[in-house]
Amino acid sequence: MMHDIRREEDSLGPMDLPRTCLWGIHTQRAIENFPISGLPLSTFPEFIRALAWVKKAAARANLALGVLSAEKARVIEEVCDEIAAGRWHEAFRVDMIQGGAGTSTNMNANEVIANLGLLKMGHRAGDYAHLHPNDDVNRSQSTNDVYPTAMRLAIVSQCEAFRAAQSRLADAFGERAVAFAQVRKIGRTQLQDAVPMTLGQEFAGFAVTIREDVEIIGRLSNLLLEVNLGGTAIGTRVNTPDGYAEAAVAELALVTGLPVKLAGDLIEASSDCGAYVTFSGVLKRIAVKLSKICNDLRLLSSGPRSGFNEIRLPAVQAGSSIMPGKINPVIPEVVNQVAFQVIGNDLTVTMAAEAGQLQLNAFEPVIVLNVLQSMRILMQAMDTLATRCVAGIEANVAQCEGALENSLVLATMLVPHIGYAKAASVAKLALAEGASVAATVVKLGYADEAGAAAMLADLPAG
Amino acid sequence: MMHDIRREEDSLGPMDLPRTCLWGIHTQRAIENFPISGLPLSTFPEFIRALAWVKKAAARANLALGVLSAEKARVIEEVCDEIAAGRWHEAFRVDMIQGGAGTSTNMNANEVIANLGLLKMGHRAGDYAHLHPNDDVNRSQSTNDVYPTAMRLAIVSQCEAFRAAQSRLADAFGERAVAFAQVRKIGRTQLQDAVPMTLGQEFAGFAVTIREDVEIIGRLSNLLLEVNLGGTAIGTRVNTPDGYAEAAVAELALVTGLPVKLAGDLIEASSDCGAYVTFSGVLKRIAVKLSKICNDLRLLSSGPRSGFNEIRLPAVQAGSSIMPGKINPVIPEVVNQVAFQVIGNDLTVTMAAEAGQLQLNAFEPVIVLNVLQSMRILMQAMDTLATRCVAGIEANVAQCEGALENSLVLATMLVPHIGYAKAASVAKLALAEGASVAATVVKLGYADEAGAAAMLADLPAG
Amino acid sequence: MMHDIRREEDSLGPMDLPRTCLWGIHTQRAIENFPISGLPLSTFPEFIRALAWVKKAAARANLALGVLSAEKARVIEEVCDEIAAGRWHEAFRVDMIQGGAGTSTNMNANEVIANLGLLKMGHRAGDYAHLHPNDDVNRSQSTNDVYPTAMRLAIVSQCEAFRAAQSRLADAFGERAVAFAQVRKIGRTQLQDAVPMTLGQEFAGFAVTIREDVEIIGRLSNLLLEVNLGGTAIGTRVNTPDGYAEAAVAELALVTGLPVKLAGDLIEASSDCGAYVTFSGVLKRIAVKLSKICNDLRLLSSGPRSGFNEIRLPAVQAGSSIMPGKINPVIPEVVNQVAFQVIGNDLTVTMAAEAGQLQLNAFEPVIVLNVLQSMRILMQAMDTLATRCVAGIEANVAQCEGALENSLVLATMLVPHIGYAKAASVAKLALAEGASVAATVVKLGYADEAGAAAMLADLPAG
Amino acid sequence: MMHDIRREEDSLGPMDLPRTCLWGIHTQRAIENFPISGLPLSTFPEFIRALAWVKKAAARANLALGVLSAEKARVIEEVCDEIAAGRWHEAFRVDMIQGGAGTSTNMNANEVIANLGLLKMGHRAGDYAHLHPNDDVNRSQSTNDVYPTAMRLAIVSQCEAFRAAQSRLADAFGERAVAFAQVRKIGRTQLQDAVPMTLGQEFAGFAVTIREDVEIIGRLSNLLLEVNLGGTAIGTRVNTPDGYAEAAVAELALVTGLPVKLAGDLIEASSDCGAYVTFSGVLKRIAVKLSKICNDLRLLSSGPRSGFNEIRLPAVQAGSSIMPGKINPVIPEVVNQVAFQVIGNDLTVTMAAEAGQLQLNAFEPVIVLNVLQSMRILMQAMDTLATRCVAGIEANVAQCEGALENSLVLATMLVPHIGYAKAASVAKLALAEGASVAATVVKLGYADEAGAAAMLADLPAG
Repeated sequence: MMHDIRREEDSLGPMDLPRTCLWGIHTQRAIENFPISGLPLSTFPEFIRALAWVKKAAARANLALGVLSAEKARVIEEVCDEIAAGRWHEAFRVDMIQGGAGTSTNMNANEVIANLGLLKMGHRAGDYAHLHPNDDVNRSQSTNDVYPTAMRLAIVSQCEAFRAAQSRLADAFGERAVAFAQVRKIGRTQLQDAVPMTLGQEFAGFAVTIREDVEIIGRLSNLLLEVNLGGTAIGTRVNTPDGYAEAAVAELALVTGLPVKLAGDLIEASSDCGAYVTFSGVLKRIAVKLSKICNDLRLLSSGPRSGFNEIRLPAVQAGSSIMPGKINPVIPEVVNQVAFQVIGNDLTVTMAAEAGQLQLNAFEPVIVLNVLQSMRILMQAMDTLATRCVAGIEANVAQCEGALENSLVLATMLVPHIGYAKAASVAKLALAEGASVAATVVKLGYADEAGAAAMLADLPAG
Repeated sequence: MMHDIRREEDSLGPMDLPRTCLWGIHTQRAIENFPISGLPLSTFPEFIRALAWVKKAAARANLALGVLSAEKARVIEEVCDEIAAGRWHEAFRVDMIQGGAGTSTNMNANEVIANLGLLKMGHRAGDYAHLHPNDDVNRSQSTNDVYPTAMRLAIVSQCEAFRAAQSRLADAFGERAVAFAQVRKIGRTQLQDAVPMTLGQEFAGFAVTIREDVEIIGRLSNLLLEVNLGGTAIGTRVNTPDGYAEAAVAELALVTGLPVKLAGDLIEASSDCGAYVTFSGVLKRIAVKLSKICNDLRLLSSGPRSGFNEIRLPAVQAGSSIMPGKINPVIPEVVNQVAFQVIGNDLTVTMAAEAGQLQLNAFEPVIVLNVLQSMRILMQAMDTLATRCVAGIEANVAQCEGALENSLVLATMLVPHIGYAKAASVAKLALAEGASVAATVVKLGYADEAGAAAMLADLPAG
Repeated sequence: MMHDIRREEDSLGPMDLPRTCLWGIHTQRAIENFPISGLPLSTFPEFIRALAWVKKAAARANLALGVLSAEKARVIEEVCDEIAAGRWHEAFRVDMIQGGAGTSTNMNANEVIANLGLLKMGHRAGDYAHLHPNDDVNRSQSTNDVYPTAMRLAIVSQCEAFRAAQSRLADAFGERAVAFAQVRKIGRTQLQDAVPMTLGQEFAGFAVTIREDVEIIGRLSNLLLEVNLGGTAIGTRVNTPDGYAEAAVAELALVTGLPVKLAGDLIEASSDCGAYVTFSGVLKRIAVKLSKICNDLRLLSSGPRSGFNEIRLPAVQAGSSIMPGKINPVIPEVVNQVAFQVIGNDLTVTMAAEAGQLQLNAFEPVIVLNVLQSMRILMQAMDTLATRCVAGIEANVAQCEGALENSLVLATMLVPHIGYAKAASVAKLALAEGASVAATVVKLGYADEAGAAAMLADLPAG
Repeated sequence: MMHDIRREEDSLGPMDLPRTCLWGIHTQRAIENFPISGLPLSTFPEFIRALAWVKKAAARANLALGVLSAEKARVIEEVCDEIAAGRWHEAFRVDMIQGGAGTSTNMNANEVIANLGLLKMGHRAGDYAHLHPNDDVNRSQSTNDVYPTAMRLAIVSQCEAFRAAQSRLADAFGERAVAFAQVRKIGRTQLQDAVPMTLGQEFAGFAVTIREDVEIIGRLSNLLLEVNLGGTAIGTRVNTPDGYAEAAVAELALVTGLPVKLAGDLIEASSDCGAYVTFSGVLKRIAVKLSKICNDLRLLSSGPRSGFNEIRLPAVQAGSSIMPGKINPVIPEVVNQVAFQVIGNDLTVTMAAEAGQLQLNAFEPVIVLNVLQSMRILMQAMDTLATRCVAGIEANVAQCEGALENSLVLATMLVPHIGYAKAASVAKLALAEGASVAATVVKLGYADEAGAAAMLADLPAG
C-alpha cells in the first residue's frame, strides 16, 4: 500500500522503504549489496554500544561548540542512551563484512539515530529536514574517525570481562595445584621420562602462564584508548569546528568512563592498524598457551590402560556413539579448536592490516569482526575449560607415584656425585636388568647403600 | 509440570527434557557443554542434509544385511528424507565448534531421527526401546566414519553451485573483455608504464584465471568422494556385519546420486585430513586470485582526478558519510575482505589437520566449519562481484588512449630495430624534452620519419 | 691498478669493475642494492641451471628465426651448457630476495653469459659490442617471461628427486608395516583407548598417506610446465619475431627433455602466480602429514616408563646434556620443525602471490626462494626420517599386547550382541572392579563363558 | 693415518674424529643427523656469542659455589671470551634446524669449549678427563635452561642495532616530511580522491608510525630478559648446588651488562614460548607497517605517464632487461618481500610454540632461527630503504598541486556550510560540466563568489 511506504533518495536515485523502517536508504542499499557472512552488526552488541557512545560524545561536542542545536543534541543523546542500553540492536542489520571502510555501519547508526530522534520529536521517520543523518547525527564526523574509534571502544569494553575469564581459569588451575602439591611424578621432556617433579608444580605452571597474560591484556587495552576522533576523513580535521577533536574525546571519556586519549598524529592514526595487529597477536599468544595446556591435559589423561593416565578429567559427555564407557577429553578438544580459529583469525587481521593504502585502511570491517569473534570464543573457551574441566580434575596418585619409583629418571641425580659417564652406565645397566638405580649404583661399586640413598634424596619438595 | 517432561539417562546420570523435545540427553549435554561460536549446526543446512544421507544409506545397508528390521529401516529412511528436505533443521542445535570429534553432531542426528521415528511409529519421544539412537539409528556406525563422510558430502554438494558462481564471474569478465577489445592503453609492470595492450586483453586475463579454477574444483570434489563409511571407530570395521562398508557406500551413491567410493585403506582414511587441506588450499588459491583482481579493479578505477581512472565501477552505494559525490569501490573491497577471511580460515584448517593424533583427528568440527564458511562467503562474493560490479564496469576510453599517445612505453618497441642502449637514450631524451618517441628517433638520427613510424607500428591488435 | 679494471655504463652512470669480472654493471649494482638474506642465487643450483636452459632455448629460437647470428647463437649455447653443468655458479651472486621482479637475476645471467661468450670469441669481458647482454643474450626476451619460466623449470626439475624421497619414506614405513603385522595393540581415538588393531595396520597407514602424495606431486609438476616464454614484458609478445614463442618453447622442450607447453593466454600467464600457491599448498599438505606422523612416532615411543612405549626409535644421538641414558626422538623432532617451516613458507608464498598488481607479480623472487627451500628441506627431512629413524624402529611387543589383554576396549565389540546400554554397564563395572570384560559379561548374566568368548573373538586379523 | 685421528665414545658407541677437531662426538653425530637447512650455527654469530656468555656465567657461579675448580673455571672463562669475540665461530657447525631441543647446540658449545680449554691447559683435544664437556663445562646446567637463555640473549643483543635501524628510517622519513611540508596534494581514501593534505603530512605519518615501534621493541626486549638459567632439566633445579640459579643469573648480568632476571616460576619458564610469540608478533607488526608504507611509495611513484606520479624514487638499478628507460621501485619491492618472509616466519614461530609438550618445547631451534632471521632481514631492509630510497625521494610538485586545483575533493569542505545534500549536488554538476567547485556553488546560487571562496579557504596549512 502506498501509505505504508516512504520514499528516500540519494545520489544513486530513489528507493521505497517501509514507512516505519528505522533505517534509511544507505543502510538498505548496504543490506542488499553485502549479503556475505550472514552475521549482522547486531551479532556484536558491544560494537553497537560503542557506536552509540561515539555518536553521543560527538553530539555533546557539537552542542558545546555551537554547531548543533540544543534540541537536536538532546534527542541524539537520548537515542544513543537507548541504543547503548540494548534497545534497538535489531535495527543494526548491515553485514559485519562490508565494503566501504565501515561507511555503511556508520550510516546505519546515523539513520537509525535520526529516525528514532524524529519519532521522539514528533516527526515521521524519514523526515530528515528536522534531523539529518549526515548533517546532524554525523556532524563533524567521518566514518574514518567514527568507525575505528568505535572498533577500539568495542574491543576495550570487553577487556574487563576477558581478564576476569583469564583470572578465573588461572584460579582454577591454581586451586588444583594446591590440591596436587603432594603428588610426585615423572617430569617429561620431549615426551621422554626426565626428572621428578610434582603434579602440583605442573598445574602451578599452567596457572602462572595464564595469569601473566591478564596484565598484558590490561596494558594493551590502554594502547587501544588512543583514538582519532575528530580527524574526520583523513586526519586533517576537515569539517570540524576549532577544538572539536579535543572536545569530542573529552566527552567520550565522560560517556564511557574510560581514559580515552586523542592520538598524537591524526593522519597516521587514520590509516594505522598496528594496534589491532598487536592486540590480535596477544590473543594469538593466549590461544597458543591454551592450546599447549589442553594438549598437556589430553596427554596426561590419556589411557586409561594404554596412556599416561596421570589425571582424570571430569566426564561431561558420554564419549562415543559406538564405544561404551569411553570418556573423551571433549572440553580440552573444544579449546584446541578455538585456539586454531583464533590463530587463523589473526592471519586475517594481519592481511587486512597490511592491505591498507594511503590515508585509510578500507578493510577494518573484517578486522573488527575477527578481533571481536576471537575475544568472544576465547572467553567462552576459558570459562568452559575452568568450570567444566579444570575444577573437576582428579589426580591418579597411584599411577603418578608408581611410575616414579625406581624409575631411571633418578639416574640424572647421580651426575653431580659420580659424573655424567658413570651415571649413564648406571642407567643403561638398570634398564637392561630391570634393576633399580640405587641397587645398580651399589652393584657397580660407585657407592654403598647409604651413599646411593643420599644421592637420590633430593626429590622435589612434594 | 511433571507431565511436560521426560527423563533420559546416560552413563553420567539422568536428565529431564521437555516431553516433546526432538533431541535427547546427549545433544542436551552438548548444547550446554559447548557454548562457543553461537553458530548451531543448522547454520549449514548442507551439512545436516549430508548427515541425513549417511544415516539413510546406513539404514538401507543394515536392512540388506539383516541387522535392522524392515520397520525400523523404513522409519529411519522416511525421517532422513524429511530432514534432507529441510524440515527439521531447527532440531540440530549443537554448536559447530564442539569437542568429541563430532560425536555430539552424530548423536544429535541419531537422537532426532530416533525421536521423529518413534513419533511416526506411534510411540512417545524418548521411548528408545522401540527405536534406539545408538543401537538402531547408529547401527554399524561410529562418529568416526559418519562424521567425516558427512563432511565430505556436505562440501561436495556445494561444489556445483560453487562452480556455477565461478563460471558466472568468468563470464561477466569475458563479456567485458569483448566490450573493451578496442580500448588501447598502457600495460604496467611494477606499477610503472611498460608496453601497450588493450583493456580487453586485461579483462580477458581475469576471465581466464577464474575459469581455469572451475575445472580444479571439479577435480578436487572427486577426491572428496572417497569416504571411510563402514570403517567405524578406527577403520577396522569393528561392529559391522560382513560386507557392510561396501553395501553402505553403494547405498550412499544411490541416495546422493554422487559417485562415492570406499577409501582403499580405511585406517589411513579414518585419521587423514589431507583432503581438507588440499581443498581449503584451492579455496585459498581462488581467494588469492580474487583479491589480486579486486586490487586491480580498485587501482584501475582510482581517481577520478588523481588516479589511474581507466575504468568506472558502477555506483552501488553513496560513498562517504562526509565527502559528497565520492563513490567508493565497495564491492571489490568486500571481496578483498572475503579473501582475507578465507586465507585465515585455511590456516585454521591447516592447524587442525596437523593436530590429529594416532587413529583420529578430533578437530574435524572446526575444519568443516571453516571449509563450509569459506565456500559460502566465496560464492556470495563472486556473485556479488559479478552482478553488482563487473557487469556494469565502463571504460574511460579517453583516459586510456590519451595516456598511451606518445608515451615513452613506445621506446621498448625500438629495441629490436636500434638496440637497447640507443632505445634507452631515446627514452631519456624524450622524457627530458617532453618530446614524442618518434620525433626523438628522428632527431637522434636513428631513422627518418617513415622508419620511426614503422618501428612503432606493431601495437596490440586492439 | 688502472689496467685491472674495466668501466661499464648504464643509464645511471658509469661504474668500474675488476677487468675479468664475469658479471657486469647491472649485477654489481644489484649485489650492492640487495644485501638482504645472505643467500646468493648459487644457493639453488637448480635455479641457475634452469636459467641456462631458458637462455639456450631462446638463442636457438632466435637463430632459427634469423634474429641472431650463427656465431653468437653457438657461443651462447656453449656457455649455457657449461653453466647448466654447474661450472660457473659462483658468478651468480645476487641475493635471492631482490627487488625488480627478477630483473637482476635475469641480468646476472645475461651478463655472465655475454662475458663468458666474449672470452670464448677471443674478446675481453665487457666488450659488449661483440655480444651484448640485452641485445643478444636477452634477445626476444624479458625478465617477465624468462624469470617465471626458469622458476617453473627449477621447481619441476626437483620433482623427480622429491618423489623418490617420498617413495623411499613410504617404502620404509611399508617395510615396518610388514614386520609389525602380527603385533596387536590398542587403537586410540582422542588419545583414549578405543578398539584393537595391529601395529602393522598403523604403519601401513603411514605408508599409504605418504605414497598417495607421490602421484599428486607428479600431477602438479605437469601444471608447472605451462610457461609464458615468448610473452616478453606483459604477454603481448612485444619485441619478438613472428612465431618466436612457439619456437622457443619447442626448443625448451628439447633442451630440458620435459613436456613444456606454451600457456594459452600469455597475458594471464604473465601475472598469475596461482600455480605456485597450489604447488606450495601441496608441499604444505605433505608437511602437515609428516608432522602428524612424527607426532605419532613421538607419542608411540614416549616413556619408557611413563608413556605409551609401544615402539623404540633407533638412538642416533645421546639424548641429553644432563640426563644420562635418555634417548630423545630427535629425528621426528627435526621433521616437525621442517613442517612448521614449510607451513610458514607457504604463507609467505600466499602473501607474495596476492600482492601481484596488474600485468606482473613483482614478488616472484621471494616465492621461488620459499618454494625451492621448502622442497629442499622436505626432501632432506624425508630421507633423514626414512634412513635414520623409520628403518630402525622396533616394536615393544610385550607392551602392545599386554595392554590389550582384558582391556576395556573389548566392550565395544559387545555392542552388536547386547546393545550399547548393556555394553556400557559392562565397561563401567569391569573398570570399577578391575575385572575382565568377558568375566563381567558372564557376571551380569548377558551370556555364558562361551558366548562371551564368541562376542570378543573378532580381533583384527593380526 | 692413525695418528691423525682420535677416538671418542658415547652411549651409542665409538667414533673417530680428526685429532685436532675442536668439536667432539656429540657434535659430529649431530652434523650427520641433521643435514637440513644448510645454515650452520655460525650463520648467527649473535647466538654463538650468547652461548659463550651463558657458559662463562655458569662457570663463574660454579666456581663461587665450590663445584668447579679455579683452574677449570678460569680456562672456561678465557675460552668463552675468545668465542664471544668471534674467534672460533667456524667450529659451531650443527644445522640451525635440529632435533633434540637444542641439545646438539649446547653440546657443540660444551665440546668446543672443553677442547679449546684442554689445549690451553696443555692437554690434547678429546682428553676429557682433564676438562669434561658435560661434567665441567655443562656443570649445573641442562640444555633446557642454557639454550633458551642463549636464545633470549641473542635476540636481546640485536635489539639495540634493530632500534637504531628503526630510528634511522623514521629520521629519513621525517627529513623528507620537512622537505615536503609545502607540497599540497589530494589525500585519498579507498584509492579515491578525498580531501586535501600535504605531502609532508603523508611522510610525517610514515615517520610517526615507524618511530612508535622503537619504544615497543625496547619494552619487549625487557620481557626477554627473564631467563630460566639454573632451572636445569625441567625447572626443578635438579643437579644444581643451593643458590646456583640466583648466582648464575647475577653473573650473567655482569657478563652481558644486561639487566637479566631469574624467572619467577622456573617450571613454567622451562616450557613457555609465549615471549617468542609476542616478540615475533611485534616483528610482524613492523613488517606489516613497512609493507603498507612501501605499497604507498610504489603507488605514489606509479607512472610516470599513467599513474599517480606524485613522487620520484631515486633510480638505483636500470629497470628492465627489455624496456629501456624504465625505472622500477626495486627497493620498496624488496622490502615488501622481506615483510612477507617475516609474516611467514611468524607463523612458523607460532606453530612451533603451540607444539610444546609438558615440561619442554622441543622446537625452540626453529623458533630461534626464524626470529633471528626476521630481525636480520628487517634490519637490512630498513637500512636499505632509508639510504637507497627514502633519502633520495623527490616530490613532483606540479603533479601534486595541479591535481588538487579545482578538484572535486573541495566539495567536502562545503558540507558544514550548505549541508551534505547540496554539497553532493555541487560535486555531481561540477563533474558533469568539468567546472570548478567554486563556480558551481555560485551557479547553483548557494553563495556568491566571496562566500564560495571563504568556504574553500580552509586548506591544510601546507
